[in-house]
Parts: sequence; C-alpha cells; structure tokens
Amino acid sequence: MSNQQIWFERISSLLEEEDDKQIKEELLALEPADIEEVISQFDSFKEQRTVFRLTEDTEKRAELLSLLEDDLKIKLAENADPKNVARLIEEMASDDAADFLADLENDTLIKEILTHLEDEVRQDITKLLSFDEESGGGIMTSELCAFPDNLTVKDVLNSLQPETLKDPVMYIYVIDSVSKHFQGAISLIDLINANPDEKVGEIAEPSSIWASLDEDREKIAAKFRKYNLWVMPVLDHRNQIVGRITVDDILDISIDEADEDIAIMTGTSEVVSHDANLMEAIRLRLPWLVVTLLLALTNAFVIGHFLKSLDKFIVLAAFPTVIAAMGGNTGMQAATVFIRELALEKILPEEFNSLILRETLSGLLMGIVCGLIAAVIAYIGIPLLYADGNSLDPFILAKIIFFSVCFGMTTASLIGTLIPIMLRKGGLDPAVAAGPFVTTMNDILSSFIYFLIATTLLKVFL
Amino acid sequence: MSNQQIWFERISSLLEEEDDKQIKEELLALEPADIEEVISQFDSFKEQRTVFRLTEDTEKRAELLSLLEDDLKIKLAENADPKNVARLIEEMASDDAADFLADLENDTLIKEILTHLEDEVRQDITKLLSFDEESGGGIMTSELCAFPDNLTVKDVLNSLQPETLKDPVMYIYVIDSVSKHFQGAISLIDLINANPDEKVGEIAEPSSIWASLDEDREKIAAKFRKYNLWVMPVLDHRNQIVGRITVDDILDISIDEADEDIAIMTGTSEVVSHDANLMEAIRLRLPWLVVTLLLALTNAFVIGHFLKSLDKFIVLAAFPTVIAAMGGNTGMQAATVFIRELALEKILPEEFNSLILRETLSGLLMGIVCGLIAAVIAYIGIPLLYADGNSLDPFILAKIIFFSVCFGMTTASLIGTLIPIMLRKGGLDPAVAAGPFVTTMNDILSSFIYFLIATTLLKVFL
Repeated sequence: MSNQQIWFERISSLLEEEDDKQIKEELLALEPADIEEVISQFDSFKEQRTVFRLTEDTEKRAELLSLLEDDLKIKLAENADPKNVARLIEEMASDDAADFLADLENDTLIKEILTHLEDEVRQDITKLLSFDEESGGGIMTSELCAFPDNLTVKDVLNSLQPETLKDPVMYIYVIDSVSKHFQGAISLIDLINANPDEKVGEIAEPSSIWASLDEDREKIAAKFRKYNLWVMPVLDHRNQIVGRITVDDILDISIDEADEDIAIMTGTSEVVSHDANLMEAIRLRLPWLVVTLLLALTNAFVIGHFLKSLDKFIVLAAFPTVIAAMGGNTGMQAATVFIRELALEKILPEEFNSLILRETLSGLLMGIVCGLIAAVIAYIGIPLLYADGNSLDPFILAKIIFFSVCFGMTTASLIGTLIPIMLRKGGLDPAVAAGPFVTTMNDILSSFIYFLIATTLLKVFL
Repeated sequence: MSNQQIWFERISSLLEEEDDKQIKEELLALEPADIEEVISQFDSFKEQRTVFRLTEDTEKRAELLSLLEDDLKIKLAENADPKNVARLIEEMASDDAADFLADLENDTLIKEILTHLEDEVRQDITKLLSFDEESGGGIMTSELCAFPDNLTVKDVLNSLQPETLKDPVMYIYVIDSVSKHFQGAISLIDLINANPDEKVGEIAEPSSIWASLDEDREKIAAKFRKYNLWVMPVLDHRNQIVGRITVDDILDISIDEADEDIAIMTGTSEVVSHDANLMEAIRLRLPWLVVTLLLALTNAFVIGHFLKSLDKFIVLAAFPTVIAAMGGNTGMQAATVFIRELALEKILPEEFNSLILRETLSGLLMGIVCGLIAAVIAYIGIPLLYADGNSLDPFILAKIIFFSVCFGMTTASLIGTLIPIMLRKGGLDPAVAAGPFVTTMNDILSSFIYFLIATTLLKVFL
C-alpha cells in the first residue's frame, strides 16, 4: 500500500471518530503536497474542507490552498470569508497568489478578495495578473532581494529578511543607486565570504542572462536548460529588475509542454488527466475523432472509387493498409525530430534544408528496404492464399507493392518534415503534424499513390 | 540571424585570419553553453580543437568540455595529454566529472586519466562511477557542506569555502557529531540571520525528504516536482549524507524521459536528434519499421483472406482503413493517459479499475457517435459512388459499419488501458503501448472484427 493510501485511511477513520485533535497531529507531520493528495481522495466536499481547516500553521495552509485542484479551490474560496482567504494569499509567493486568483475564474469573488489584501500585496498581484500567462511576466514572482551598488556587504547581510521571501533565495541582485538599472548578482555564499566593508557594486557579477517581461516562457525554459540555471532575473524595458523566475516553475512548464505535445500527437486538445471524469474525457477527445473519421471515410471513398474499375483484381484491395501504415509511421518518425527539437529551441532555421534532405533520403533508403521485403512476401504469399487461381500476376503485384511502399515512405518523410516547419512558421504547435489529422491526410495520399501506381503498372503490363 | 550564427561566422573568419588573440577576446564574452553551440557548427576537428584551446580560464574550459557532444569529447581526450584532461576534470562538479569519464567509453584512457587525478577527486569519481546511472547515486554530486551539530553558526559561516563547491549552494547540512547521522538542513539565508552563537544543531530543519543511493531517478524526479525542491540530500543505508541531487539535473532528466516516451510512441528506440547523421537515423528507425511492415502485411493477408469469400461485395474492401484508423486513435488516446501519468508517478494502483472502466465506457459512447456518423455517410454515399448498381444493400453495409466502428473503438479503448498497465507490471516502459507495434496489432484485430461482423450480418440478412 502506498504512503498516500495509508495516510488517507488513517485520516478517514479519524474523521469518522471526529477526533480533530489527532487529525491535526497527523497533518502536522505531512508536507502540503502530501495533504493535497490525501484531500483529493475524499469524495465529499465536507470532508475535504474539514481536512483543509484542520491543517494548522497559516503558511502551510496557504501552500496547501495553492496546490489544490481548481474546482476545490473555487468551492473553498466561495464558501469562506474573503478576509480569511486574503490572509492566506498574503502568505503565498506572489506568482502562486496571482495563479490562485486567476484559477478562481469568478471576477466578483476575485475583486472582493483583492479589496481585503494589504496594499502592497494587492499592487504586486494586480500587476502580475496583467501579464500574459505564457510570458516572463506571467511566470515570475516579484519578491526578490535587490540592493543599491553603494551599500557594503555588511549592510546587505544585516538587512536580509528571510520572512519576506517565500521562494528559496540564492542570489541578491545589485542595482545602480541612481538609475536603478540592473547591474548583476551575488550568490549568498560569495556574499558570506566577501570582505564586509566592500561595496556590493564591486563584487556583483554582471550577468548577460535575464528574461524580459514579454519573453515567451518556452524560450525562457530553453535558457534555463542551456545554462543550467536555478533562478533568472526579469528586467523591464527600462532595464530595471522587476522579478525573478525560479527553476521549480520551469520544471513544471517543461513537463507541461511535453505533455501538451504528447496530447496533440495522440489526438486530444489537452492532456486528459487520470482523474478527469468520463464526460470531460469525451469532450476533449471526440472532436478529434470525428475529424479523423471524416478523413478516414474520404479515404474509404477513394479506395472504393479505384476498386470499382479494378474489381477483376480484388487482391489489390488487401494492401492499402500496408502502404498507409508504412507511410504513417515514417512520417511520424520524421515529424518527431522537428516537433520536440523545435519546441526545445534546439534547431536553428539555418539547419532546415539539410534536415529536410536527410529525412527525405532516410525515407527513400528505408522505403527501398521495406518495399523489397513487402514485394518478396507478397510474391510468395499471394499465390498461396489464392491457390485456386488469382487473376493478377504475382510479379506485377510485387512491383506495384514495391513502388508504392518506396514512394509512399519517401513522400511521407518529406511531408513529415515540411508540415512541422510550416506549422511553426504559422505560429502553430508543430506537434499537430504527428496528430491524427495529418496522419489521416497521409492515409488518403498513400491510397492515391498506391492506386495510381497500380493503375499505371496494370496499363503497362496488361 | 540567430546569435549563435553571428558568433559562429565571426569566429570562423577570425580562424581563417589566424587571429588567436581576437578569438580569445570573443570567447571571453560567451558562456560555455554558447561556445559549445559554436563548436558544434564547425565540421573539422582541427577548428573545433582550436576554439576549445582558445577558451581561457580553466573552470570555463572544464564546463565547456563537459557540455561537448560525446564523439568530440572522445576525440579531444584521445588527442590530449591525460594530465591536462585530469586538471580539467578536477574543476568539474563530481557528477559531471563521472559522466564525462563514462562518456569516453575507453577503459584504458579512463584508467590513465584517473591515475593523474588528485587522490580525493579520484576516490569520489570512482565511487560515483560504481552507481547505476539511473539511480540516486548515479545522478548525485558528492560536493556538499555538512557540519557537525555542535558547531555554532559563527563557526560555520567562517568555514564555508565557496571555491570547493562547483554547483550552486542553498543549504548547509547538519550531521550528528558522534554518529554522523543526517539531521537536517539550514538555508544560507536563515544561517545569515541566525544568532551567531547558536549551535547549528538547534536551528537545522529536520527534513523527511531525501533520496537513497539506489532509488530510481524517475521516482526522485517525481519528488522534486511534487515538493518543488531545488536540491535533495542523498543518504546511504547508514543514514549518512553522501551527496546531493540538484534541480538542473532533474530538469534534464524530466525532459529526457518525456523525449524517450515520445520516441517510443513514434517508433524509434531512442530520440533521433536533429544532428544525428543519416545512417544513425536509419539504424534507430528501420528495425521498428520492419516489424510494423511484417504486422501490416499480416493484416493484408487477413483482409485478402476474407475478401476471397466476399468478392461479390467488393465495396466492403473500402472500409477496413476506417475501422483501423478509428480503433488506432481511440486506443492511443486511452493509452496516453496511462503512459504519462504512470511515468510521472501520478496514478495509484488502487485507481486502475475505475480508470479501465472509464476508458472502456468512453470508447463505447464515442463509438456509438462515430459509428452512427459513419453509417449515415456510407448509407448515403455508397449508392452515389456505385451508381451503376452495387451488389450490397446500403442498409446492411451501414449496419456492418456501425457495429464494427462501435465495437472496434470499445475494444481498442480497453486494450489501450490494459497494455500500459501490463507493460508497467512487467517492468517495461508503458509508452510502448502507443508505439507502432501495438498500433499495428490493433489494426489486425480491427480487420478481424470488421470482417467477422460483415460475415455474420451477411449470413443473417442474405
């Protein structure tokens, strides 16, 4: 049994006994993320709220609140005194506080809570809420330690106040005492080791790596990974430091982006979580399936159309699935290179042409190998299946299959590279190229290729 | 033009002019990760080595070395004096040093370099090399600040030496002065603010979150995400702290795991990087394609077999691709829920049954909708396509299509949930379930379902 399950069962039975004192004890030993998992296992709001209320220590309760599922956050906030909600928000890091309010999705309630916040906190949060969620401003926190360059190390060490900072601190930032321009950073460990009487402006390391308020969060995440950063300052257009982005948020963003890619590739507009309900899962999936269905039916009509004129050679009807499967997989492989590496900002535009060439060549070479294998198997297998006499010469069939597999895989590779690049240029997510829409379009194309080759070769040979 | 491209062209032309002094200047302004990108754009080893050598500052050159592509690392190490390589390794964080040596893949060379290392560094690295790469021991670094609990805050502040620590420091760790057991951590900012005469043992926060040496790295990454950590201590079986894991490595691991899932889902055994060469790309992809091909051919023979006895009704041959596409996509959607959430350690075994039920029900309901759409379109469309008289009653065809789409999608959903769970229980990566192997197996199953339903309904109605 998992830890979560043990905690859940223990707290469940304590809830039945209404032993609030013991529940408080139990919760004291758990981290907020663990309490969130316990709460998510209860079905009734009453029990969920009781566990939330019995979580002592305002700071811990604030962190728990920011971790809860959106619908539970909303219910709790709607059923609580806005003053109390405001007290908890004041304990959150400003980015979590802004995210929390945004998640409530209820403008009246948000305004009500905002009025009960301390002025400074309210200003911070209102500012953060005004930024695009996907930008540097949208993912930064405004708490940071910035000091004028003319202070001494000793002054700074004496004025650091940990209680005002809700995220971990590794660096203090140094700004120009007059212009307030950002100058650089000093790690705490270097600060501790510095000469106490030295001016911080003299020991700050000038940093060329920072984010701007409107920088795309994927680009920021790529910089974190490239330079192995833990924290990054955010500067506004006047070159003043206005916040910092922390690596824990970047970790979440990176996982979310990967999940989003996978969701798109497998045909759901968002990730379907394991705890989504049935209707939610269907709502996210069905639209994509219906589009796929319409395209697949188009393919069926293409096949049907060609078969009408080729009905002497019914054996031909067995192979469209082979061409489609091979084209689909090759195209997917080619697309994947672009999807992830474009997302991770690893490919430079200068490299596009050589990559398109490599992929097309790879498709052609693999197409020759697979085409030969398929042709040989069909040449040997089809006479065995149609032992009672098959109206199509197995050698011609083998040729049709060889050329369509080979040509189909080459075309699919080319398309698999071109579509992600075009999507990217059009500002769309390249992952769409590996999704069901493009895959099924490829199926239609492969049916055309197959039957055109079949019709041509049959005209030549018969 | 990207920054990388500008730097590359500038350094390129300086190399032609053999202006080493100016190159050194240029490199001084770049971060090691930027220099790595410039180097990777040169084709000749001579140029790559020159840029590497002109990177001044041993620390920077050490970081650059650890960032280079594996084959370039190997070439540089093989062409350099092992003593010089040893000097650079001594500048690396111990985990990077161990990774670097492991990447060389040349035991003689590794031993040679090891003999030139300082004793302490050699012992550290040899120990790290002995751990499984996928475990806590394999991803930790051994540099950390641990102090006995009976020291005072002042003592500790005076003995912190930043130069011995290559990764950022946020916490000092406190150990029992007698048993050496791990006691807890103090953040640097709390240390700065503490009473200088207090014992560190009294202010250390006991932490319940740590990794063990043999803990799986995916489990460790899940803890980092769950608890929003930046660094985690690693304890051995005697409860002594032996290292720490830093969040930059966890970020890389999380991205790698996601990429691996995507690679498996799209049918390559590893991620094909955009800078892999043609043969490398083919080597990673072709085996999967050949397996897919053999399965697709099996499907063709299944279809061929049934068509033999149904050749009066050639229109039936147009629809296997529809059933396969719908089954494939539904199965993929169901599998995706499990693949990522099993990987991210989000689903508890207790939840399996209700999830299987939800997915199967979702497949059935969506199957009814899609089946109806397909049946109506076939009912209207087929008589138009076969206007010259079609030997199969469109109403019977519509029924065949409805039941096969519906039944095919339900079965695919069920299989899509069962296979990842079975793979996980067997210790395999659940992502295989969305890969070409399982998808093509599903195609064969859907052909069977389709023709069995067709044969049955035709027997009943004709």
